[in-house]
Amino acid sequence: MATEEEFEVESMHFTRLLLAVDDDDDESSRRAFNYASTLAKIYNIPLGIVSVLETGDLNIYQSLSPDILSARRSEIAAHLNTYVEKAERFGVQDAQPIIGEGKPARVILDEVLPEFKPDLIILGSHKQRGHLHIGSVASEIMRSAEASVIVVR
Amino acid sequence: MATEEEFEVESMHFTRLLLAVDDDDDESSRRAFNYASTLAKIYNIPLGIVSVLETGDLNIYQSLSPDILSARRSEIAAHLNTYVEKAERFGVQDAQPIIGEGKPARVILDEVLPEFKPDLIILGSHKQRGHLHIGSVASEIMRSAEASVIVVR
Repeated sequence: MATEEEFEVESMHFTRLLLAVDDDDDESSRRAFNYASTLAKIYNIPLGIVSVLETGDLNIYQSLSPDILSARRSEIAAHLNTYVEKAERFGVQDAQPIIGEGKPARVILDEVLPEFKPDLIILGSHKQRGHLHIGSVASEIMRSAEASVIVVR
Repeated sequence: MATEEEFEVESMHFTRLLLAVDDDDDESSRRAFNYASTLAKIYNIPLGIVSVLETGDLNIYQSLSPDILSARRSEIAAHLNTYVEKAERFGVQDAQPIIGEGKPARVILDEVLPEFKPDLIILGSHKQRGHLHIGSVASEIMRSAEASVIVVR
């Protein structure tokens, strides 16, 4: 409590947003997307929308099949493009699709963040999938990312 | 991916903010406070500022001493009032100090949230105290709160 008298409040805004989405959208994903698009539009700042192909989720047979991987990549690309188009129609000037492959938290932390350099990461809570699963991804990002993180409900 | 074509983006704003602070302010706390005050001012929405007297942190001798508890309560009240005054000077119309006592995450989840009903909880990351400590408090709030949660860095 030593220094609290010495500062004044300063306005603070984020300048570069990263929204993480996945295949099975729920209400929290929709709200996270609404919030990300609202911020990006109001402040006219870039919005990256990342989705990670969870290769760890595929079984051994699938992981050996280039066709299935290729189909999944196409699905994710189409999914991301839908988001980008909706954001642009809403008024976001700079919306960018980003596709990763691997473990979601690691891919976002090790590949996407160093490249895209957001100062705010926006996640849905995915409540209906159970607390623990999304908790571990969100917690890992929250603990390790250098950016601020918001979990939208 | 079944329904993503069917919706359009809607503007989304938060309407009631809760900022959690503690005694040992760091840079992330300062930024969390700046961000909370900025949102509260721009949208003219209520900002609760909560600090929890961590009774679990006191040793047995201290926990038996009403004088020490009383002194700690006064310190926290003064600390919160400083925040409230700074927020008001910055332009926040409705800033409210909230004092809790016990385990921070439990007090916030079980007592403060049901009473104050924020839709966004704002936390600093407290990086210099180590990832795990604040991670557990923030993670617990993030997992269990019905509100959105932002960790500011």
